[in-house]
Amino acid sequence: MSILITNIGELVTNDPAPGRDGGSLGIIRDAAVLVDDGLVSWVGSGGDAAAHAEASGTELVDAGGRALIPGFVDTHTHLVFGGDRAEEFAARMAGRPYEAGGIRSTVAATRAAGDDELRARLAGFVAELHAQGTTTFEIKSGYGLSVRDEERLVRLAREVTDEVTFLGAHVVPFEYREDPALGDGAADAYVDLVVGEMLTACAPHARWIDAFCERGAFTPEQSRRVLEAGAAAGLGVRVHGNQLGEGGGVRLAVELGAASVDHCTYLSDADVAALAAGDTVATLLPGVEFSTRQPYPDARRLLAAGVTVALASDCNPGSSFTSSMPFCIAVAVRDMGMTPAEALWASTAGGAAALRRTDVGAIRPGARADLVLLDAPSHVHLAYRPGVPLVARTWKDGALVA
Amino acid sequence: MSILITNIGELVTNDPAPGRDGGSLGIIRDAAVLVDDGLVSWVGSGGDAAAHAEASGTELVDAGGRALIPGFVDTHTHLVFGGDRAEEFAARMAGRPYEAGGIRSTVAATRAAGDDELRARLAGFVAELHAQGTTTFEIKSGYGLSVRDEERLVRLAREVTDEVTFLGAHVVPFEYREDPALGDGAADAYVDLVVGEMLTACAPHARWIDAFCERGAFTPEQSRRVLEAGAAAGLGVRVHGNQLGEGGGVRLAVELGAASVDHCTYLSDADVAALAAGDTVATLLPGVEFSTRQPYPDARRLLAAGVTVALASDCNPGSSFTSSMPFCIAVAVRDMGMTPAEALWASTAGGAAALRRTDVGAIRPGARADLVLLDAPSHVHLAYRPGVPLVARTWKDGALVA
Ligand SMILES: [Zn+2]
Ligand SMILES: [Zn+2]
Repeated sequence: MSILITNIGELVTNDPAPGRDGGSLGIIRDAAVLVDDGLVSWVGSGGDAAAHAEASGTELVDAGGRALIPGFVDTHTHLVFGGDRAEEFAARMAGRPYEAGGIRSTVAATRAAGDDELRARLAGFVAELHAQGTTTFEIKSGYGLSVRDEERLVRLAREVTDEVTFLGAHVVPFEYREDPALGDGAADAYVDLVVGEMLTACAPHARWIDAFCERGAFTPEQSRRVLEAGAAAGLGVRVHGNQLGEGGGVRLAVELGAASVDHCTYLSDADVAALAAGDTVATLLPGVEFSTRQPYPDARRLLAAGVTVALASDCNPGSSFTSSMPFCIAVAVRDMGMTPAEALWASTAGGAAALRRTDVGAIRPGARADLVLLDAPSHVHLAYRPGVPLVARTWKDGALVA
Repeated sequence: MSILITNIGELVTNDPAPGRDGGSLGIIRDAAVLVDDGLVSWVGSGGDAAAHAEASGTELVDAGGRALIPGFVDTHTHLVFGGDRAEEFAARMAGRPYEAGGIRSTVAATRAAGDDELRARLAGFVAELHAQGTTTFEIKSGYGLSVRDEERLVRLAREVTDEVTFLGAHVVPFEYREDPALGDGAADAYVDLVVGEMLTACAPHARWIDAFCERGAFTPEQSRRVLEAGAAAGLGVRVHGNQLGEGGGVRLAVELGAASVDHCTYLSDADVAALAAGDTVATLLPGVEFSTRQPYPDARRLLAAGVTVALASDCNPGSSFTSSMPFCIAVAVRDMGMTPAEALWASTAGGAAALRRTDVGAIRPGARADLVLLDAPSHVHLAYRPGVPLVARTWKDGALVA
């Protein structure tokens, strides 16, 4: 099965080469792309396309002069959950207290939801991601917080993506926090469970281990226990860190060789230097700061230091319920000092780096044919036209999914 | 032709009544709506719907528990133009100078574009508006700035909307500004044209007159000449004012009984008091501040003073190229002190007030059946899920348009 896409006004390859434009984006104007069996087999200029069309059996797509970009790689979502926190969001925006909300309500709703209910919601989110041009997405557990429920969440996530992260160390569950026998030892007791029975149950379904290293969640020491146990079980390391303060998340992530440390809102100079010296990607999550009215992370500072930056949605019902990578790009350009080109790279190739993947995030021969046709002449429009749904078509592994 | 929409989890009517919820939104839970011949004929609770379904010929739509809201009323766009300013946008975001840009480049491209080219672009924008739930939209001229071209723009706009605004007084065109014989009299000389031959040519196609009352555009005195001439020609008055400074736009608008004064970013206490005492709507345009990195207008201050507030996109290629009312709502909630309910009201009923319309902006018997089904259980999700395309279906006058 072959597809030849021609008349691409601007092709973003993320594969710089002599004669290409846009720095890291490796842009070809008036371009064409050939797809064979789900992989990109040829990329070039429109004038050379005819020679690459098979005599028959090749589907021809006319891009009409529009832009074609790599599918978005969203490396940070929490999409397996029950319930809704719209009322809590509205209360927060109005500055009103809202006692019934918080992660505890999502944990309760998730535990109460049946597998099929969670599956149906996941299917809805997958359709939504595809419609917005996201072709690779990570999903974390973390709203189960019991062996039974965390295993359920990673198993269900694994039904829709290869990029599953076991985040038992999301928060200390309330049944531990409120157990008077545990007192100050609640977090350590829960970590015993996470690195023991829970990890054993979850590791077979997961590719990654993650821990929320932050005040109010887990200390650097507790996070280290979780991450090292996960690594010993064969999982790659990712970290939630430096969202609410400088904490120790970034340096722990770099020390452990994590693929990514996510949030990075508050960074000391030592944190930035550690990121620049290591090979851990800094994944920024603008939706969180947008939806919680917090100051944005400084992408410019990281880029200036030579750090690899990714953007991701952190789609979750509490702090960032967007699943829109174009929205993240628009905010990153307005408020985080990124150019449209840097923000697009961070949302595609940067995401691939944060997942240690070379088969996605670029349009080059041998890569997966994960392609997004924009209703726009240029990738700049993703930031220039905030909120406008500009995804005309999405192909995943060469198949049209939106 | 009848349509019965049932199983509406949350129906936003903008028609408060005893037993309804959400203040001005007039929310009915588990609701149903009957549409006959393009108008809403009945609104009520799901339990009473069966009695309103005709025996035959009624199309049944199951909303699946989702929210139904009035179509958005976008009262401020500049959608008839040629060219593109993506490069200028990218340069501005990077803090780089960009000499080739500005409104002058759009005027040149618009004058150079043929009618059919402008028509094709307009058709694309109309489809984009419908897909995002906008069912009533205003379009301004203002990129022609000659009798021939302004007449062309209002005539073409009139082909797609009843709400056409003649904005010859957008800026002083460069051929006037650069005419050494005119010197400081360039703006007055151009205003002579606007209130004379240009108004005569444009008024038959327009419902509104508008002037950009701002430093660098037109003084309050020049704006008054334009607006009074337009009013004498039978046009309703709207004003661009107080975008870049306190200027005199708001007080001129209120004094002339304008339907709306748009931008309102910089307001003195006297401006707020004038708005509160008059019946001119304050239309806020968050896309402009987002895309130009300016401080946002303070909607809370206006609402607290009792001013009627509308939200609009100001969709234009220079300062705000979004056409997304959901995006405007999300920004208004994050950065302008509005609740999700206030922002939705401002985007529907507030827009209707800014156009002095009673047939749109609410879902009540006799109103146009301009309806938007959301892929969400509540209108709160428009702010809670920024950037996510949540419009499942749009009906305009009872016909499905997206
Ligand atoms: Zn997260
Ligand atoms: Zn305007």
